[in-house]
Amino acid sequence: MSTLENSGPADQGLQTLDESQLTVLRRIDEVLRLAGRQCGAKEIGFPSLSSVESLSKIDYFRNFPHLGLAVAALRADKVSALAADAAGTGDSFESDALVAPRYFLPSAACYPIYAHLRDRELVDAERVTTVQRCFRNEERFEGLARLLAFTMREVVVVGAQAQVREFLEERKRWVQRFASGLGLDLAVQVATDPFFEAGGQRARMQQLFPVKEEFVFDGSVAVSSVNFHRNFFGQRWNIRTADGEFAFSGCVAFGLERWLHALTRRWSGDAGAILEMLDGSPVGTAST
Amino acid sequence: MSTLENSGPADQGLQTLDESQLTVLRRIDEVLRLAGRQCGAKEIGFPSLSSVESLSKIDYFRNFPHLGLAVAALRADKVSALAADAAGTGDSFESDALVAPRYFLPSAACYPIYAHLRDRELVDAERVTTVQRCFRNEERFEGLARLLAFTMREVVVVGAQAQVREFLEERKRWVQRFASGLGLDLAVQVATDPFFEAGGQRARMQQLFPVKEEFVFDGSVAVSSVNFHRNFFGQRWNIRTADGEFAFSGCVAFGLERWLHALTRRWSGDAGAILEMLDGSPVGTAST
Repeated sequence: MSTLENSGPADQGLQTLDESQLTVLRRIDEVLRLAGRQCGAKEIGFPSLSSVESLSKIDYFRNFPHLGLAVAALRADKVSALAADAAGTGDSFESDALVAPRYFLPSAACYPIYAHLRDRELVDAERVTTVQRCFRNEERFEGLARLLAFTMREVVVVGAQAQVREFLEERKRWVQRFASGLGLDLAVQVATDPFFEAGGQRARMQQLFPVKEEFVFDGSVAVSSVNFHRNFFGQRWNIRTADGEFAFSGCVAFGLERWLHALTRRWSGDAGAILEMLDGSPVGTAST
Repeated sequence: MSTLENSGPADQGLQTLDESQLTVLRRIDEVLRLAGRQCGAKEIGFPSLSSVESLSKIDYFRNFPHLGLAVAALRADKVSALAADAAGTGDSFESDALVAPRYFLPSAACYPIYAHLRDRELVDAERVTTVQRCFRNEERFEGLARLLAFTMREVVVVGAQAQVREFLEERKRWVQRFASGLGLDLAVQVATDPFFEAGGQRARMQQLFPVKEEFVFDGSVAVSSVNFHRNFFGQRWNIRTADGEFAFSGCVAFGLERWLHALTRRWSGDAGAILEMLDGSPVGTAST
């Protein structure tokens, strides 16, 4: 199964996946989606691009400016010049060929959920699951374990602090059961912030992610994380609970290609065996 | 089912999908994937970004410069300035904040297939199916029918001219059966090139797409197209048939959100009825 794992332009963090890898990836996501539904989450599909405005609102550019990948069209004069140029090969572009970027590629799946709930007063806790193609301009890439473009499934809860903490504890146990059923021995680690370079930024980072635990395969590959955001997103998007307080939030994230990587390593690329185990996982029986 | 269709920032070509829309979208893609497999295509998953070099090689920037969306990280000095700035809101960027773009977002799913087959001599015709999140910087957007970000499933054939023509004819009949089984009355139209503005560019466009037929819903929404590329991609990527000639190629493309749009309109948003009909489509019975 892993024959194609390194056949793409892997040095750039981009991977080409073969049929059996795609089948496993889809099945992992299906199980996670069903598990999300089973704990009361509804699914929403958000756009593939995030506006600069929405990211600015949650301090994205203070905390992750190095990871960001902007999206911009070519300038009209450049478009005209290209269309009129019969030469046809050897194009390359400088940034001044582009218009000002209005969007960035998502680097996490859950941000649009909080924006979606803006100005709401929640009668009960909201649970949402979503999957997104995410992008991170990392300094180095490594096979399926560290990609420029990858897929993230998240389950999010927004509500009162106690509801959020309880949900995250319950989901944490679910991830452990799920991994265990797949034969994966994951270490739970309180996360340091590998994204961060300067100490002065850490304080703001901790405001966003004061509690982050990672599920780590093979000592270094965080396949999932559980994150408690306090009421950061509630404040920024004016989401309130029934008592008028800003809502708290938390999320559980699954890096699908990292789970594929871990399962492939653990089971020597035996896709059939992996699919059988996925069928037997906590919510593995239904097909849709 | 269509309640969320216009709830996203629709004016910008981005849509938020609800659970029943996502369920239908996944099921459409599943049927198309199985139909692809049934006609001998293997599935490959390609990276979410295309290098400028690979797009330049197939004259992308001569033909579609206006549709292209470049991807670029922030410059190192900009990253440092942002991370050090405690203010935290109201960011906006000019293009000079970006490094030179090395990637563009895909505007079609099939281009990487030809690159994947580069320098190959094909013993028999190659059939490949792939799905990709695609992006087009259109001048105007319209609900699910014309999106900035959308999903395209393609089935591609690369081989001798007769093999390609036969495959496309057979697939064309399949699309008609598939649509008919879903109660959709699609008009088959020889496509003009709506992407094109100036007459002088048309000749080169026709080299890429000399034969293009579209399956049109409701007079204006092309949900699928059948395309014959002659040996254009074979020449550019040095793909040859067993007799040493440059390979011909063709593709059948499905705009998934447009199929969702057409089915939603046709069946007044009755997701249950649509899913039942999808179960009865030419390859609708297996679940994976």
